[in-house]
Amino acid sequence: MSLVVVGSVAYDTVETPFGKHADLLGGSGTYFSLSASSFVAPSLVAVVGEDFRADDRELLERHGVDLAGLRSVAGKTFRWGGRYRDDMNGRDTLFTELNVFETFAPELTPEQRRASCVFLGNIQPSLQAHVLEQVESPHFVAADTMNLWIEGAREGLLGVLAHVDALFLNDEEAQQLTGKRSMVLAARAIQELGPSLVVIKRGEHGAMVFNDGDIFYVPAFPLEKVVDPTGAGDTFAGGFVGYLARTADFSPMNVRRAAVVGSLMASFCVEGYSVERLKRVDPETIAERYTSFLELTRFPPLEL
Amino acid sequence: MSLVVVGSVAYDTVETPFGKHADLLGGSGTYFSLSASSFVAPSLVAVVGEDFRADDRELLERHGVDLAGLRSVAGKTFRWGGRYRDDMNGRDTLFTELNVFETFAPELTPEQRRASCVFLGNIQPSLQAHVLEQVESPHFVAADTMNLWIEGAREGLLGVLAHVDALFLNDEEAQQLTGKRSMVLAARAIQELGPSLVVIKRGEHGAMVFNDGDIFYVPAFPLEKVVDPTGAGDTFAGGFVGYLARTADFSPMNVRRAAVVGSLMASFCVEGYSVERLKRVDPETIAERYTSFLELTRFPPLEL
Repeated sequence: MSLVVVGSVAYDTVETPFGKHADLLGGSGTYFSLSASSFVAPSLVAVVGEDFRADDRELLERHGVDLAGLRSVAGKTFRWGGRYRDDMNGRDTLFTELNVFETFAPELTPEQRRASCVFLGNIQPSLQAHVLEQVESPHFVAADTMNLWIEGAREGLLGVLAHVDALFLNDEEAQQLTGKRSMVLAARAIQELGPSLVVIKRGEHGAMVFNDGDIFYVPAFPLEKVVDPTGAGDTFAGGFVGYLARTADFSPMNVRRAAVVGSLMASFCVEGYSVERLKRVDPETIAERYTSFLELTRFPPLEL
Repeated sequence: MSLVVVGSVAYDTVETPFGKHADLLGGSGTYFSLSASSFVAPSLVAVVGEDFRADDRELLERHGVDLAGLRSVAGKTFRWGGRYRDDMNGRDTLFTELNVFETFAPELTPEQRRASCVFLGNIQPSLQAHVLEQVESPHFVAADTMNLWIEGAREGLLGVLAHVDALFLNDEEAQQLTGKRSMVLAARAIQELGPSLVVIKRGEHGAMVFNDGDIFYVPAFPLEKVVDPTGAGDTFAGGFVGYLARTADFSPMNVRRAAVVGSLMASFCVEGYSVERLKRVDPETIAERYTSFLELTRFPPLEL
């Protein structure tokens, strides 16, 4: 199935306990589409400035990402800077320079309008709605969101959610959106807003998948070293939605497979800065890590 | 296999966002032995004061907990008070009154000295060592510990760990003990100190089990409402070790079963204050929830 993703393409400056790296290729659209590109040829709708590097464009193209919807305009590419705390879980945003993203109004090409799968990256709900209006008859629409929109653009977000099949968010955001402390109750409340599939991302603790009445728990892969968690959530969503688009199978068991694929792609993402590790993933390493997930979680029936 | 547990029996005062309850039956020895009692008849080594309620003694006896090693002495029973934060994860200790626990020196009965399984609850390492000296030739020794001893009694703790087969601790404690941020590296470092089985407890995120080279991830059961997390860790250990003592099977796959049993017992524990829910658990509810864990975590092989 064809897959269109709308999101940011950015240059990130990331500080971790291991060092500081500036102007790394990042952004939700980048991580999502590079992750999804292991399964389908996603089409990216985004904007960059004149400073966007030819190398980075080539990297995406080499991975089969369709860049017909990547506009290049006068000005600088979106920039974000953040610092991770010692435990690599919490992070503080140091700066956000919207630059060319400030006036971004995503316009889909005729081909993109006929997409069967759509991922609305974490951008303001009015832009997510603007994209949805352009897509003719999508089979599956997934979205991401964040505290900023839950607080500041709640009505717009609720309008989008009514037309969304799957929502990706973290546990704090789920609590903020619904007022429910229990993720079971929060997911149920979100399902009543529209999405029948609610994916609660929990960072190093994996994710919980609420798919209608089906509940599935996928861990994060236990790694010896997390180098840079930036983009893990979008990489997770890219693997998840990319796998569903590839298989065109939305049965509960295949949605579980997709969640495992999402988690394993995220595990590659955090093993390197930016997309360094992610860009070197191949079908064999994916299949190997999937097997590792099976090994990590299997246990036999009870004997008493 | 026979199972002896050394730990505290306490009266807890617990404040949660839902209310405050005083003088609830608690303590690591209580939670562990009540949880283990679903699988074996554990023998409890502990001390209580003159104020220990006959009801509470009867409750433990009714569940098959052997109280020959429960000393009753002049003075008041150990008391602990804590307040849970809004998200029910973090908690602050409001008071600790050691009372009769202050002069507690665990003495095992002749029968207890012949125990094949021993659980050293979270008490000071010198007391854990004192228990170990008394046990003749245990097949399996498990222990719990906490930040207080890692910081303040490190040498004593390391001495105990050299004689321990399994260590239960949370991720913060594992990091504090080893200086490793990655749980994979922390567990490996702990294994070098003695225990071949390292169980990292992660509260609402479940637990990671490092059993020699085998790594297993068990989630916490997704609940609509967590009433009181007090004792969840000891209940987890009680189910885990109780199940191993019952089955006398320490193979990797049975250790995985034991971890699931531990997590499911903990899920019952947090559904009520004190031992209110735990004391009503029966083999059928255990088997049902075990099946729910299988459902929660299973996924098919990859198809691409």
